[in-house]
Amino acid sequence: MYSEVVKAEGHLIDSQIMTGIFDTVIACEATYEVLEFHIGRTNDDVSRLKLKVIANTKERLDQTLGDLMSFGCYRLEDSDVFLREAEADCCVPEDFYSTTNQRTEILHQGRWLTVDDQRMDAVICLSGGAAVCRKLRDIRKGDLVVCGKPGIKVIPEFKERDRMGFAFMSNEISSERRVETSVKKIAELMRRVREDGGKIVFVAGPVVIHTGGVDFLCKLIRAGYVNVLLSGNALAVHDIENALFGTSLGVDLERGLPIYEGHKNHMRAINTINRAGGISQAVESGIIKAGVMYECVQHRVPFVLAGSIRDDGPLPETMMDLVVAQNEYAKQLKGASLVICLSSMLHSIGVGNMLPAWVRTVCVDINPAVVTKLSDRGSSHAVGVVTDVGLFLDLLSRNLVG
Amino acid sequence: MYSEVVKAEGHLIDSQIMTGIFDTVIACEATYEVLEFHIGRTNDDVSRLKLKVIANTKERLDQTLGDLMSFGCYRLEDSDVFLREAEADCCVPEDFYSTTNQRTEILHQGRWLTVDDQRMDAVICLSGGAAVCRKLRDIRKGDLVVCGKPGIKVIPEFKERDRMGFAFMSNEISSERRVETSVKKIAELMRRVREDGGKIVFVAGPVVIHTGGVDFLCKLIRAGYVNVLLSGNALAVHDIENALFGTSLGVDLERGLPIYEGHKNHMRAINTINRAGGISQAVESGIIKAGVMYECVQHRVPFVLAGSIRDDGPLPETMMDLVVAQNEYAKQLKGASLVICLSSMLHSIGVGNMLPAWVRTVCVDINPAVVTKLSDRGSSHAVGVVTDVGLFLDLLSRNLVG
Amino acid sequence: MYSEVVKAEGHLIDSQIMTGIFDTVIACEATYEVLEFHIGRTNDDVSRLKLKVIANTKERLDQTLGDLMSFGCYRLEDSDVFLREAEADCCVPEDFYSTTNQRTEILHQGRWLTVDDQRMDAVICLSGGAAVCRKLRDIRKGDLVVCGKPGIKVIPEFKERDRMGFAFMSNEISSERRVETSVKKIAELMRRVREDGGKIVFVAGPVVIHTGGVDFLCKLIRAGYVNVLLSGNALAVHDIENALFGTSLGVDLERGLPIYEGHKNHMRAINTINRAGGISQAVESGIIKAGVMYECVQHRVPFVLAGSIRDDGPLPETMMDLVVAQNEYAKQLKGASLVICLSSMLHSIGVGNMLPAWVRTVCVDINPAVVTKLSDRGSSHAVGVVTDVGLFLDLLSRNLVG
Amino acid sequence: MYSEVVKAEGHLIDSQIMTGIFDTVIACEATYEVLEFHIGRTNDDVSRLKLKVIANTKERLDQTLGDLMSFGCYRLEDSDVFLREAEADCCVPEDFYSTTNQRTEILHQGRWLTVDDQRMDAVICLSGGAAVCRKLRDIRKGDLVVCGKPGIKVIPEFKERDRMGFAFMSNEISSERRVETSVKKIAELMRRVREDGGKIVFVAGPVVIHTGGVDFLCKLIRAGYVNVLLSGNALAVHDIENALFGTSLGVDLERGLPIYEGHKNHMRAINTINRAGGISQAVESGIIKAGVMYECVQHRVPFVLAGSIRDDGPLPETMMDLVVAQNEYAKQLKGASLVICLSSMLHSIGVGNMLPAWVRTVCVDINPAVVTKLSDRGSSHAVGVVTDVGLFLDLLSRNLVG
Repeated sequence: MYSEVVKAEGHLIDSQIMTGIFDTVIACEATYEVLEFHIGRTNDDVSRLKLKVIANTKERLDQTLGDLMSFGCYRLEDSDVFLREAEADCCVPEDFYSTTNQRTEILHQGRWLTVDDQRMDAVICLSGGAAVCRKLRDIRKGDLVVCGKPGIKVIPEFKERDRMGFAFMSNEISSERRVETSVKKIAELMRRVREDGGKIVFVAGPVVIHTGGVDFLCKLIRAGYVNVLLSGNALAVHDIENALFGTSLGVDLERGLPIYEGHKNHMRAINTINRAGGISQAVESGIIKAGVMYECVQHRVPFVLAGSIRDDGPLPETMMDLVVAQNEYAKQLKGASLVICLSSMLHSIGVGNMLPAWVRTVCVDINPAVVTKLSDRGSSHAVGVVTDVGLFLDLLSRNLVG
Repeated sequence: MYSEVVKAEGHLIDSQIMTGIFDTVIACEATYEVLEFHIGRTNDDVSRLKLKVIANTKERLDQTLGDLMSFGCYRLEDSDVFLREAEADCCVPEDFYSTTNQRTEILHQGRWLTVDDQRMDAVICLSGGAAVCRKLRDIRKGDLVVCGKPGIKVIPEFKERDRMGFAFMSNEISSERRVETSVKKIAELMRRVREDGGKIVFVAGPVVIHTGGVDFLCKLIRAGYVNVLLSGNALAVHDIENALFGTSLGVDLERGLPIYEGHKNHMRAINTINRAGGISQAVESGIIKAGVMYECVQHRVPFVLAGSIRDDGPLPETMMDLVVAQNEYAKQLKGASLVICLSSMLHSIGVGNMLPAWVRTVCVDINPAVVTKLSDRGSSHAVGVVTDVGLFLDLLSRNLVG
Repeated sequence: MYSEVVKAEGHLIDSQIMTGIFDTVIACEATYEVLEFHIGRTNDDVSRLKLKVIANTKERLDQTLGDLMSFGCYRLEDSDVFLREAEADCCVPEDFYSTTNQRTEILHQGRWLTVDDQRMDAVICLSGGAAVCRKLRDIRKGDLVVCGKPGIKVIPEFKERDRMGFAFMSNEISSERRVETSVKKIAELMRRVREDGGKIVFVAGPVVIHTGGVDFLCKLIRAGYVNVLLSGNALAVHDIENALFGTSLGVDLERGLPIYEGHKNHMRAINTINRAGGISQAVESGIIKAGVMYECVQHRVPFVLAGSIRDDGPLPETMMDLVVAQNEYAKQLKGASLVICLSSMLHSIGVGNMLPAWVRTVCVDINPAVVTKLSDRGSSHAVGVVTDVGLFLDLLSRNLVG
Repeated sequence: MYSEVVKAEGHLIDSQIMTGIFDTVIACEATYEVLEFHIGRTNDDVSRLKLKVIANTKERLDQTLGDLMSFGCYRLEDSDVFLREAEADCCVPEDFYSTTNQRTEILHQGRWLTVDDQRMDAVICLSGGAAVCRKLRDIRKGDLVVCGKPGIKVIPEFKERDRMGFAFMSNEISSERRVETSVKKIAELMRRVREDGGKIVFVAGPVVIHTGGVDFLCKLIRAGYVNVLLSGNALAVHDIENALFGTSLGVDLERGLPIYEGHKNHMRAINTINRAGGISQAVESGIIKAGVMYECVQHRVPFVLAGSIRDDGPLPETMMDLVVAQNEYAKQLKGASLVICLSSMLHSIGVGNMLPAWVRTVCVDINPAVVTKLSDRGSSHAVGVVTDVGLFLDLLSRNLVG
């Protein structure tokens, strides 16, 4: 039998980390023995665990210890991280360490370095004395890549139990809830983030336009509650179509009826922007006088439009090279305090993949399956609201702006 | 080859009845020949069709003609309806005519009689010189039952194309719509029904309470927009739980959190009503001071609570004998001009089964599959709205009451 | 400040009971101090907790202790349970104890009695020296009802971590899973239950028939894997319609097309059964020769058909008095080891309300929202499978019967 | 009053084109007068309509006639199409004609030319004597663009009523159907397309892998039923992850459990392909020995992987420039007889936008909302199947290959 002792500290019980540790050992077909457990005496105290993990092969033991890392378990005596050179562009050694979205530190030359740009599914490179997450596609021959498991420590987020009731919101995703209650909490959080000088990022799909959310989102932009807008080509096209012709996908938003040649309106909107040279130019030259894109330009809210296989057009600003678009998304997400995802599974998952676990995320969609999928992506600070996104924005803007 | 000539009149094209007639003949593996077709010259004119149906067996011809009946096709020379006696309670002759929800007439002793209490899945009885729909379970030995196909004429509803835009609403069921637009049309319809002295029936599930719709539904009741409330035990229990304790299924509706012993509150609510002797008594004795049931009692809005296999309690008013409950529902639906179904597939389908095709029906649910299912049940006047029911009621009551 | 000390034992960490205890104290706005915590050294050992709960009012302390009961927390020195007489039929004293679905014991005359017929939302009566769950509607004047909180102990189910992987299945509800894997585990569980002489209850909706599951469910019945069938009127009607005419709701199951007068077939099926005097009589007289109901009769599988507001008919066997139907359901569920719910939210929730927490439950539905709703109802042994129910039955019967 | 006479021919009634024409006139607030209507005497005969459209302004008349074009209505005396030069790249004159996905002809120098590469939301250019659909982004300064409405004729698809029952399948989208029946018809269609030398295109999302569909899709590829595969990065990554490690998103497909370091497997898969230089190289060098991508390479089935904002990696073959990816998709779709979309709303809508209306399309998804959305996109030959995609592929491959 092979065994090793690991330690972990923190709010191990209320954040369900202890449960995760024990489940992981059993799932790896290993066994455990609790050597020491000091429980936090009160809600504010941390707990401390010293655990012996036992397995019948060396390999299984290593695997178990590897899986326990994401719960913050670390070896008693740690050695420096193991670095290897990338053999070619986009290629890393076989035993590379694949990151989670949790805060990570590596031990290098006896010092613990916090990894920058933390995100999931990346590798850690040592570059200029600093540790940084890098995507596989950005690896260049010769980069120093963290490999194996020694010298790596993951510090899981602990659930903050009573701070603004945010944690409690996330318990259950259901359409059978009173949306007003969730909206109040989200509004409170937004107010606080703004007071603290934090950054609020909106991720939005075209459903915001179709469901009549334009005016409400515009109110939020004007009131300074939207610091970044991440979206795709369709939101911008339908917003501009609405600003120019009063329709969205050819449907008159006031009367709910398809109008004459309405199906052509989104093509006309693209053509108009193409002739102006871009959205900003169209705003500045007075061609577009209202709408989400108009307010973004007027209030200098950065926006990124990522292309997709289904796009028409695209608009001049739409980034059809997705590597460029992903980089631009990541750049704008840097330092975000709160991300609000509105009815766009595609862009929301893209954003979720880029975010560290500690950024609070709110997902609003009328389809509970989308909300579940987004909330499940490993962030302990994600909450979901199942409701009509147009009505949600109405409520939210009434709450924040009046 | 066997053939017969049938006729049909009305808005055959814009109501897609012609398409239905031709599809039916092909589906029955028969063929047709158009003998005469006079098309309505303008939107107000009716069309007239004379069609020869040809089949290779007598049986197939009869089947085809039978299926064409629901599109209003009738034989050139009709003979009296064929009547047989029911051989036993709840039993009818094998060739009984099974009703649709379309307006139906029978030829009896040379006179066309309009069938009363029209609904689907019933049989037609002749009773005291009148024709009436009767459910199988209400058939008594000796009842005169309409059998076979001669002497029966179905008069399908024609789609009224431009009246208040109602028909256009029903085109498509999607969550990607602006709810305000639908609400405006529904409000307009409700106003008009009330002005005309019509009856508005609400069918509501407990989600109305969970999603915070109570205050808005109460406003509608007080303003006279709810003439009948059809529901189940749960709506009443959770409404009373909310009135007494501020919770719904134990969740505090203001804060969105489960509260102390909240899970017990709905049992306490039932116990309270049981002790008072019923909902009306609890309202009259001042125990209940607010909520949907309170307003119904105060404003003398008849309500029917049908029991189900999942009910707790039940409350004294809840009808656990479903034959009694169905009869009471049917009685209250008589003469309804507009039925609004809110988040209750079970009760809405129950109601749909009882209604004639010409009663306008609005189905509101956050799940598009429910709305599709309800709208598909054969009424040409059903529209669906996919949205959050709490927010829908907020919008609707702001629109109607302010 | 008011305080009291409680104890709890068991698999407190891996069953997330410790997390629940701490969350509950915080949610009740009380605080805690861990006096002693002995952690289970290995996976098989139990843990032991001694916790001081502190609140600023006596009432809040009592509330917190009350809420902690469902996690198995009990007072150090307990006194006899408090009994009061019911003042009238269906009415209990205000401070009645409302049950959970967890195993419960009461201390009466110094002896701990296990409560019989454990289910949620009932009261506990002492009757003939035994403790038993009783529904409010079954309370009679003079019954001795357990009130307040002393002398009551709840013993929560502990998650069995590695037994047949059942627990692991329940982690996540998603349609993006390989159904074969879940089916294999369910089949294994069914085999083991049958070997152990356990009882398997199927709860099924009419979708079983519409999706073509009849033959596969029949195979399971013939092979002895269905010990009880709980359903409604519609399953039986459509099954018999299918047996007699090859259609389900008028759609030919082989060709997928509506057939001639198909809409009438379910009425004809009901009429046929009415004439025979009932389903059993129709089977015995050879009128019905196949299908789910046929196999139930032939293999003496008890079935209960509960009525609902949407039923046509009903068939003679359908219980339209829901009090009778609920009692019959409860009777047949007694002693069940495994309950498999197929596409019937209504009947499945009804059954879930009747079951103690320790009965394993599998919920199969194509709609993930239904599966989530059923799995959330407090049973630690419920798993959900999101898939097509017809194809699920095909796979399951191939797995079990071949 | 202004008026003009238009004509239309074809299966105007059974394809609901007459209904569409009348509805359109009313929706445009114009009126009509039927001058002549010759109805098809039998199912095979076409109908002929001569209609006078009347409006109170010249503009409204023009708008109405414009909207009637998509129903195949054309002016009695037509003049040559109106051509204008594009003033700049990606910009067209304001009155450009925006295409539908219906077959279109233009009158140029007295000859009717059929438009090539028909798709929706494009413009028509005259280039080298031929008419061709061109996307806005592909327009170059000086291109001759069709503008206004004269000289354009749309020939709508007519519903083929009884050919292989395909049309009848599309009536209703519901999960309450027998999937076997739909599978049989789709298999029959696939067989016939293959016999006729037609091209079958599969559009597939990663859910095919997660739900265990790999083996079945591989069988279909080996048997020659997949002529093109259109997908994104994720399908290929998870397929290769499954081939290399037996997992999909880290979940062991045999046991349904997350495995050790499983979350890392998809990164390892990408790294492996990067090192090999690409998927084809990895297959040829024996690194990948099974799976969907393996079979595509071995059987020379062209595949296109389009990038998206949520992609990891990407693989060397993934096209991250979406303009390139869209062009490649369009190229591979050319000449397709049948398109089968499996659980990928994004790629399926992308494909739907590129296809002419007459290409038959099958959409399979467990979410009815996705199926509705895809089927509604203007193709008269789209059918939807709501079911588990893994089980669907199992059934389909058993049906076609055994």
